[in-house]
Amino acid sequence: MGGIEEQVTGVNKCSLSSTPKENGTMTSLSSDAVINLDIGDPTLFQSYWSKIGDKCTIAFSGCQSISYFANTKNLCWFLEPELEEQIKRMHRVVGNAAVEDHHIVVGTGSTHLIHAALFALCPPDGPEPTSVVCAAPYYSCYPEATDFLRSGLYKWAGDAQTFDKDGPYLEIVTSPNNPDGTIREAIVKGVQEKLIHDLAYYWPQYTPITCCAHYDVMLFTASKCTGHAGSRIGWALVKDKDVARKMTKFIEVTTIGVSKEAQLRTAKILGVISDSCLHPGSNNFFEYGRRRMAGRWEKLREVMGRGKLFSLPEYPQEYCLFTGEYSESQPGFAWMKCNENIEDFEKFLRGHKILARNGSRFGSDPRHVRASMLCTGEEFKLFIERTCLETEERLLQNKPSRDSL
Amino acid sequence: MGGIEEQVTGVNKCSLSSTPKENGTMTSLSSDAVINLDIGDPTLFQSYWSKIGDKCTIAFSGCQSISYFANTKNLCWFLEPELEEQIKRMHRVVGNAAVEDHHIVVGTGSTHLIHAALFALCPPDGPEPTSVVCAAPYYSCYPEATDFLRSGLYKWAGDAQTFDKDGPYLEIVTSPNNPDGTIREAIVKGVQEKLIHDLAYYWPQYTPITCCAHYDVMLFTASKCTGHAGSRIGWALVKDKDVARKMTKFIEVTTIGVSKEAQLRTAKILGVISDSCLHPGSNNFFEYGRRRMAGRWEKLREVMGRGKLFSLPEYPQEYCLFTGEYSESQPGFAWMKCNENIEDFEKFLRGHKILARNGSRFGSDPRHVRASMLCTGEEFKLFIERTCLETEERLLQNKPSRDSL
Repeated sequence: MGGIEEQVTGVNKCSLSSTPKENGTMTSLSSDAVINLDIGDPTLFQSYWSKIGDKCTIAFSGCQSISYFANTKNLCWFLEPELEEQIKRMHRVVGNAAVEDHHIVVGTGSTHLIHAALFALCPPDGPEPTSVVCAAPYYSCYPEATDFLRSGLYKWAGDAQTFDKDGPYLEIVTSPNNPDGTIREAIVKGVQEKLIHDLAYYWPQYTPITCCAHYDVMLFTASKCTGHAGSRIGWALVKDKDVARKMTKFIEVTTIGVSKEAQLRTAKILGVISDSCLHPGSNNFFEYGRRRMAGRWEKLREVMGRGKLFSLPEYPQEYCLFTGEYSESQPGFAWMKCNENIEDFEKFLRGHKILARNGSRFGSDPRHVRASMLCTGEEFKLFIERTCLETEERLLQNKPSRDSL
Repeated sequence: MGGIEEQVTGVNKCSLSSTPKENGTMTSLSSDAVINLDIGDPTLFQSYWSKIGDKCTIAFSGCQSISYFANTKNLCWFLEPELEEQIKRMHRVVGNAAVEDHHIVVGTGSTHLIHAALFALCPPDGPEPTSVVCAAPYYSCYPEATDFLRSGLYKWAGDAQTFDKDGPYLEIVTSPNNPDGTIREAIVKGVQEKLIHDLAYYWPQYTPITCCAHYDVMLFTASKCTGHAGSRIGWALVKDKDVARKMTKFIEVTTIGVSKEAQLRTAKILGVISDSCLHPGSNNFFEYGRRRMAGRWEKLREVMGRGKLFSLPEYPQEYCLFTGEYSESQPGFAWMKCNENIEDFEKFLRGHKILARNGSRFGSDPRHVRASMLCTGEEFKLFIERTCLETEERLLQNKPSRDSL
């Protein structure tokens, strides 16, 4: 089965002890704790929200939000008008995606919307399942999401770079890419191609905003934008009305809508973020996120640069329309490569009590791993210490790693 | 495509004007408004929650519930411990289902859990899809939920009463049944049978609690228990650990968990309901619900009893373990039959600006419709007035209906 569950089983102690408490303080990790960087749990942003105080607080009385319906005038009838408004406002403030001629469909996280988009874009009565591709390394959840129900509508067909089958197909374009942070365009570009753009990380804390994206189907999620993964709110910007209608239908058939509490809280949080960008002197959320990410990337590159054991991708300097400055990407994940003769990098790191996701899960090789850069401060500190220790030991002793295979 | 969306499109004015405002007051319906009884939107319970005041109010600060994880020690790692506790407490207080030897899996409504249970109970590598059956009249959403992705794991096979195929199959037992309110047991009872018990309406406001249900997979939803449909919280009580694990996996792959805000608010609401049952003198939620439902059923039976145009099912008196009294079921839907020569009862009612769901959608015939009994007071009043008017006109004039076909 794989995925989160297995990881959780393996890291009970760590995840529990590093889970932020509700008041925003962190419990302490022991120096030999297992640290879970397998999942991109965005607890990095916790500290911002702790400082924000009551500005974001939202209360629900017992009689609110009883009905299934949020706005029967809207194609997406369960989308709260306040959330719709704040999503549009946020994209306008950041300038990362066009909203004027797009419909908004809300889902229980953007994962829900990936499924919805597959359903909406693949013909319901084709002679065989539509091929679904993505350039490797691709987000490890796509193959399972596509195939786990053995749907007759779509089927995972692997790496877009080697795909050469005739007939209709669907390409998922993840930009910035998960796991490796690169900026991407569609690869295959055939006549019968349909595209889903997964733009979960196209926010200023991760990458320069180089253009206002204007694709047919664009997916975003609060988890990676604001850091509120627990709310499970994602949204799709969809140009074609029929596609938006079918995606809405998918959400209806699978869950009859999306939690109103989560929608209204996300609306409040997005509003606070937009305000923070517009009012000089306030604590700009994206500036804060950029500083925190930059600090972590600088630290990681510095430690890794001490030896040749590990390496990281390099990113170009780009002009960011949001900040008005040149900067490089600082992705939510480190796509780490092991340059020594270690066949299974994930296993090697596990020996150092660091859980990361094996490169083979992303259509790449086991010499790569994906490690979250969005973990808590304590987890990141231990990650750096252990990486540093290993690098220095190797440099000093010029011996194979203690845990190499 | 059918379902909610179509209905919404047809009733924009009505649904909007009858949607409860957030402060709990209702907007006024004009006397010629279309009333939507197609969907079981549980707005009936709004008035209880308005009276409850601040007891149920819950607030979320910006830094709460950030992480994906709720309890990494739990098999269902995204289930909030407070919700788990209050679900168990509620079932113990009501006595409607066994919780001691069951795992709890939370979903975005019980619809999500129907899908999860299909995934968990059908073999992943069978030579052909597992047949899914339910005795007619069955909940109209089951066929679509089973077939809409053309899964290779399961396939809708219709009425359990006529099913006679060899091999593994899965039966959904809905009790009290949606649409007709009857109490049900499994029909097919073969060796290779697997069962899902959909017990969404097995609460004292709808039916006498005659036993503590103790099935393998039991589904419940806040929508029908507390009336909070907008929260989209459902839960499954699952005896087998591997089945619970697979259901959790399904929720992970489709939505990576369930909104924490909705879970924590539902926990609070369930707690208030349990308190209301345990403390004499407080406004017992189920007593309130029973009174309201009884009042509506009495009114509807009285009006329908004036003529022979429509008829309703009769329910036996049963001893309720929760109330300690004999009573009969008062279901969330009226399963109405038209006794005259009207081929399409739904269309006939639409002529009277009443939207109900066609019996043919439930594997029954178009002389039946399902009409919600959980609508707002205003909607119910108009429903009764129009039904009454039609019945009396017929009695007085002994002529065919104005809108009959």
